[in-house]
Amino acid sequence: MNLKEIMNAAEIMEGVLYRTPLVPAPWLSKKIGGDVFLKLENLQYTSSFKPRGALIKMLKLTPEQRQRGVVAMSAGNHAQGVAFHAQRMKIPATIVMPIATPSAKVERTKGYGATVILSGNNLAESEMKARQLVDQGLTLIHPYDDEDIITGQGTVALEMLQDQPDLSILIIPVGGGGLAAGCAIAAKAMNPDLKVYGVQSTACPAMIHTLYPERWFMPPDSIALPLAEGIAVKNPGVLTREILQKHLTDMIAVEDFEIEDAIDALSMGGKVVAEGAGAAGVAALIKNPELFIGQRVGIVVCGGNIDSRVFSSLIMHSLVRQEKFIRIKVRIPDIAGTLGKVTSIIGELGGNIFELVHQRHFTVHTSKMTDLEVTIETRGREHSQQIIQKLNENGYTSHKILG
Amino acid sequence: MNLKEIMNAAEIMEGVLYRTPLVPAPWLSKKIGGDVFLKLENLQYTSSFKPRGALIKMLKLTPEQRQRGVVAMSAGNHAQGVAFHAQRMKIPATIVMPIATPSAKVERTKGYGATVILSGNNLAESEMKARQLVDQGLTLIHPYDDEDIITGQGTVALEMLQDQPDLSILIIPVGGGGLAAGCAIAAKAMNPDLKVYGVQSTACPAMIHTLYPERWFMPPDSIALPLAEGIAVKNPGVLTREILQKHLTDMIAVEDFEIEDAIDALSMGGKVVAEGAGAAGVAALIKNPELFIGQRVGIVVCGGNIDSRVFSSLIMHSLVRQEKFIRIKVRIPDIAGTLGKVTSIIGELGGNIFELVHQRHFTVHTSKMTDLEVTIETRGREHSQQIIQKLNENGYTSHKILG
Repeated sequence: MNLKEIMNAAEIMEGVLYRTPLVPAPWLSKKIGGDVFLKLENLQYTSSFKPRGALIKMLKLTPEQRQRGVVAMSAGNHAQGVAFHAQRMKIPATIVMPIATPSAKVERTKGYGATVILSGNNLAESEMKARQLVDQGLTLIHPYDDEDIITGQGTVALEMLQDQPDLSILIIPVGGGGLAAGCAIAAKAMNPDLKVYGVQSTACPAMIHTLYPERWFMPPDSIALPLAEGIAVKNPGVLTREILQKHLTDMIAVEDFEIEDAIDALSMGGKVVAEGAGAAGVAALIKNPELFIGQRVGIVVCGGNIDSRVFSSLIMHSLVRQEKFIRIKVRIPDIAGTLGKVTSIIGELGGNIFELVHQRHFTVHTSKMTDLEVTIETRGREHSQQIIQKLNENGYTSHKILG
Repeated sequence: MNLKEIMNAAEIMEGVLYRTPLVPAPWLSKKIGGDVFLKLENLQYTSSFKPRGALIKMLKLTPEQRQRGVVAMSAGNHAQGVAFHAQRMKIPATIVMPIATPSAKVERTKGYGATVILSGNNLAESEMKARQLVDQGLTLIHPYDDEDIITGQGTVALEMLQDQPDLSILIIPVGGGGLAAGCAIAAKAMNPDLKVYGVQSTACPAMIHTLYPERWFMPPDSIALPLAEGIAVKNPGVLTREILQKHLTDMIAVEDFEIEDAIDALSMGGKVVAEGAGAAGVAALIKNPELFIGQRVGIVVCGGNIDSRVFSSLIMHSLVRQEKFIRIKVRIPDIAGTLGKVTSIIGELGGNIFELVHQRHFTVHTSKMTDLEVTIETRGREHSQQIIQKLNENGYTSHKILG
């Protein structure tokens, strides 16, 4: 694995994969007084960087291996990356997915003509099934711990530095480590002074634990689902960890709620749809601007496969966190006409009422009084405060509620 | 206005504006058995194509005009386009906006250092105020009916055909007509055989009415707000209509709900955030695939400035239309334990319960029975039907409700 092989890989990709754009992000640049660029791998075929490595690996299969077919374990983007090329190259592909994989992901993978086997409660258990199929003659396409895969993913950084040769820092999300390892090899060979940061979520910081055993993170709630599934990899690669140990400047940990905010910021500021893993790099920059002051930073937005219901909800969550969407409790006398007065006060201040519920039973007041729960769209914290204050001034005791 | 001037304009833009990518859209290509590419002007500075024309116009100002300043009327993208360059070029800019302009748009325009005046109930009334300021010495930067503006916007098509010279059809949203006129001039000069379609929403089909007076559209509900504000222009340009009359293959009308679906499809299929006007071209292709069979189609996604609450809601609306998100009414006996049975039936079939409300008062049944309203996430129409059928088989009379 070296720059020359990565350059060869890039040549092979021409006309097969899409050379994704590196777009300026002035809305992030101003946070660091520098220049930020986003490598939009969410615009790649299958909406992630994964088909890059899969292509390089699958082109090396012998005619016999191609005929027998390939197998991969994946709940997400790697599955689609492998299936995409298998369909093009007419190679039978079997993808082993955990039993609880959302049906949308199963359908999307089947859409590329792959056979999907649901087996195991997690990816490690799916791997056992995949290994059985390898024993039966199929070739395993590992999602990250493979020289060809790493070489293929390295083309991401190569393209970034071809487009903007004077980038001084790269920020790359890390799951198994294939993308970051390949990119680090390319970037360090092209410019040894360049800093390369890896990013993981504290919801699954396995690579950080491997590289920096002394760092400790609060383990996530036992029933919590990771937001950034694409980098929630429990077993970091053996090859990849060696490369990262050698080349990485540091790893940055971000919280899942910070990733949510980054997805929202990417959609509203950057006008692109990123999945959790795809937004982790932006979350790292927003969380630690001091590391990047005045620099020219390239961030890999590595994928865009996010469930549309989750995506819709998190945009609303972000509005709630910014207090542009608030719920207030207003104590009113339960008589006709009061509602008109209260809603007029809110409306005249420019608050847009979204929902309004009377709460008559579960209240501490007498039956002559009632609680009104009003959900309002506002211009933000200050405006929300104004509305609440005005209601209180008019005798309608009000306060913000959450949950 | 000709190709040479448009090529000069493109040269002037280098390093000042972003040369946006033309990205392949395989998810649309398969609908027409051809190739579809999206010109992502939502990734342009200020998130729309507007600063292209504004730059060419503003560079032609005399030193004296620059000193006196510029004025524009706009509720949206043109305001930001003008303010963006005014800030860079240190030209005082005054933007006149209708009184009811959402505060987010006012703030974004002020963010570029422009003075914002709220005047008039609509853009036509704002224009009166702008004309007053012109009388006082400011130079008007018209949003579309201006040769320099049209020339600047034409660079969009120039870049598209430079990147993919064998495009056979362009689809371009039309408001005042500046973008479509400039693009049509460039495209027809580069390839006279190329077809150019304009798109408008039936919510405001003013240019269609101007060019094709015989076409009739149901006027929108008097209180309806147009989804695609960027192309809801009541007064088509005089210059632009002449150019479109000459060069346009045809105009396509789309409904606002089709634009909603296109915004959703762009976010989930294309991984980009488009505003209503930005998605109109994609809506036109999805609505009329027969016009584009086997062709190489370039669609301009002209802007990405959409309110985040509206964006979040419409993603959910789309899920509702696809019946991936349903609300059903279930008639149950009002006794302890029933809820567990009903929710287990739904859960075992893979339905994810989102909300559950008991309806005891507003029901036609006796007080011993109650209606349950259950909101469920499903895999789509067929799966929803399965769930409803299974509940009925178990004696719980169920049906889908909407509204």
